[in-house]
Amino acid sequence: MNQKLDEFFEKVITVKLPQDRSYVDIIDQTLLPGTIRRIKLDTREEIWEAIKKLRVRGAPAIGVCAAYGMAVLANKYKAADYDAFYAQFKSDKDYLATSRPTAVNLFWALDRMDRTCQANAFRPLDELKEILFTEAQAIRDEDVQISRNIGEIGFGLLKNLKEDGKELGIMTHCNAGTLATAKYGTATAPMYIALEHGWEGSDMHVYCDETRPLLQGARLTSFELYNAGITTSVQCDNMASLLMKSGRVKIIFVGCDRVAANGDAANKIGTSGLAIIAKHYGVPFYVCAPSSTIDPKTPTGDQIPIEMRDPEEIKTMWYKEPMAPEGVDASFNPAFDVTDHSLITGIITEKGLCTGPDYGAEFKKLGLI
Amino acid sequence: MNQKLDEFFEKVITVKLPQDRSYVDIIDQTLLPGTIRRIKLDTREEIWEAIKKLRVRGAPAIGVCAAYGMAVLANKYKAADYDAFYAQFKSDKDYLATSRPTAVNLFWALDRMDRTCQANAFRPLDELKEILFTEAQAIRDEDVQISRNIGEIGFGLLKNLKEDGKELGIMTHCNAGTLATAKYGTATAPMYIALEHGWEGSDMHVYCDETRPLLQGARLTSFELYNAGITTSVQCDNMASLLMKSGRVKIIFVGCDRVAANGDAANKIGTSGLAIIAKHYGVPFYVCAPSSTIDPKTPTGDQIPIEMRDPEEIKTMWYKEPMAPEGVDASFNPAFDVTDHSLITGIITEKGLCTGPDYGAEFKKLGLI
Repeated sequence: MNQKLDEFFEKVITVKLPQDRSYVDIIDQTLLPGTIRRIKLDTREEIWEAIKKLRVRGAPAIGVCAAYGMAVLANKYKAADYDAFYAQFKSDKDYLATSRPTAVNLFWALDRMDRTCQANAFRPLDELKEILFTEAQAIRDEDVQISRNIGEIGFGLLKNLKEDGKELGIMTHCNAGTLATAKYGTATAPMYIALEHGWEGSDMHVYCDETRPLLQGARLTSFELYNAGITTSVQCDNMASLLMKSGRVKIIFVGCDRVAANGDAANKIGTSGLAIIAKHYGVPFYVCAPSSTIDPKTPTGDQIPIEMRDPEEIKTMWYKEPMAPEGVDASFNPAFDVTDHSLITGIITEKGLCTGPDYGAEFKKLGLI
Repeated sequence: MNQKLDEFFEKVITVKLPQDRSYVDIIDQTLLPGTIRRIKLDTREEIWEAIKKLRVRGAPAIGVCAAYGMAVLANKYKAADYDAFYAQFKSDKDYLATSRPTAVNLFWALDRMDRTCQANAFRPLDELKEILFTEAQAIRDEDVQISRNIGEIGFGLLKNLKEDGKELGIMTHCNAGTLATAKYGTATAPMYIALEHGWEGSDMHVYCDETRPLLQGARLTSFELYNAGITTSVQCDNMASLLMKSGRVKIIFVGCDRVAANGDAANKIGTSGLAIIAKHYGVPFYVCAPSSTIDPKTPTGDQIPIEMRDPEEIKTMWYKEPMAPEGVDASFNPAFDVTDHSLITGIITEKGLCTGPDYGAEFKKLGLI
């Protein structure tokens, strides 16, 4: 539909399968934003290392990488019968599962491939190999469809805000983009879908929070939006208040890691502060949430545990020299925070837009919980 | 009063005059936090370079450095009469004034030294040299007294919040500390005064925002508080919301660059967002403002111009390699933002504590405007 956008996706889509399906083709995210390099994952060791070392990251992207990986590996098995085939499959699957022990999507994708393998034990092995490719492709296609649906709903919001001849200011935090998913991302999906619907990159201006300490907004989100031709800025997280006060930001989209049954949403650290500031200035704040992130077993955000990470991410990582004295504590380094549902204008799922304050009722209406 | 604190100030006070008054003694802030090195400024070129290269920074500290510098330089003049003496004085003063063309305190201190010199033209030159030292010392002592007064008021607030046997959580942003002033700082004065009144460093826990992009909180504030023995943490700016939600922060002190007649306060970028978040969580938010920062000619914050700085501060400075793609815009790099007076619990001046919402009336009552 949009040749420039297609070229962009060709270059930047995180995980791809080449025509001959002999390897998994990923963009090495550890080299971004300086170097765009696609690498071939041929062996289980290479796939393991790519996930472990965050060359591929983002829950959906890891899932697709693992699924493609299993199909690629299985396609090379020389096993004579199913039992030998499955022994090899099981060994590879268990091995890949050790690459990131907390990545739920990794296990989910591997288990789904495993179930498909076992359910088709009676098929000829050549046929089974094809079925595994089909299943991996389905995992990928489903994620694309989820993002597309979220993007269409988000694009509807953008259309309502758009003024003729003016760029529409959009803000986002962290990276919930192409690089984290199969294609459109979640928080970025409205913008990519806008391009597919004929908007120019200059019709929008996306302000990316740099997102300390890991700088995913600066390194990844600004990288991908800029490469897609969308007008893009990066600013420090603490500039959000003045940026919103200036009137440049008309809408905010963020991704999420988990949504509680009442709509409280866990996302990258800084999201809740951004939501508080957005509410202060009256800027609409939307959480883009695939239904898989909505957890009916978590009643409110208070039950979502917050991972504390290495203080060195704050004090030394990225820097030429340490930016805080050696003895100073930096142990308060939460990976996430929880945004109270009262601060969220809407939660966009692939099944529809939910608006507050009673998110529980809305989730039920859409069959999400 | 407190030997450990005295040793700390001995080590860290930004600008000092040695016994023999032959040079200006400064801590080289460009080497912090990695290296604590005091350097001697002997010549006008060295003083100029130290101010220019930010070895000494912070408006009051620059003023003291320039005043001490003029007295030290004048003390070495071999002039036979006042006219020759003053010609040299004027030349040195005009030269130093070019070191930082926007530093109001620099001009203010130089002009005050100049007026003192001219007002004492009739004195013997040896006596005039002493008078210049006395004036420089007065500039320094007045700043110490201003900070001490602010500190005493702030300490009163701390005492009210302190629970026995518990550390009192305090938050600050940027560096309005010892390193920016003659001794106690402004936002840090309540904590140093608490130590002078017998509090232990462990009675408090100061959470320093790292303060992107220039990281003054991580590099300078955490450095000085840690070295004074105060329990100190540094966190990313975007962690403020979760930190306040956790209940650890009982009070916030920030400095300021300019306060409008209605109480709107300009301070380091990020301050206004912090104030919005503090209001959301009900954490009291105080601005420490020497009366010299209150500008009766500025009716509201809207009249305060915001300096935009180099995008490279966001994208490349400090880093081993660029953290955002080369083409990506980072031109929204404001040095300051303005905190609306409605978000400020109180403004602490050396003449008293002003509380909102009608700061104009309070300023008048104290004779500040």
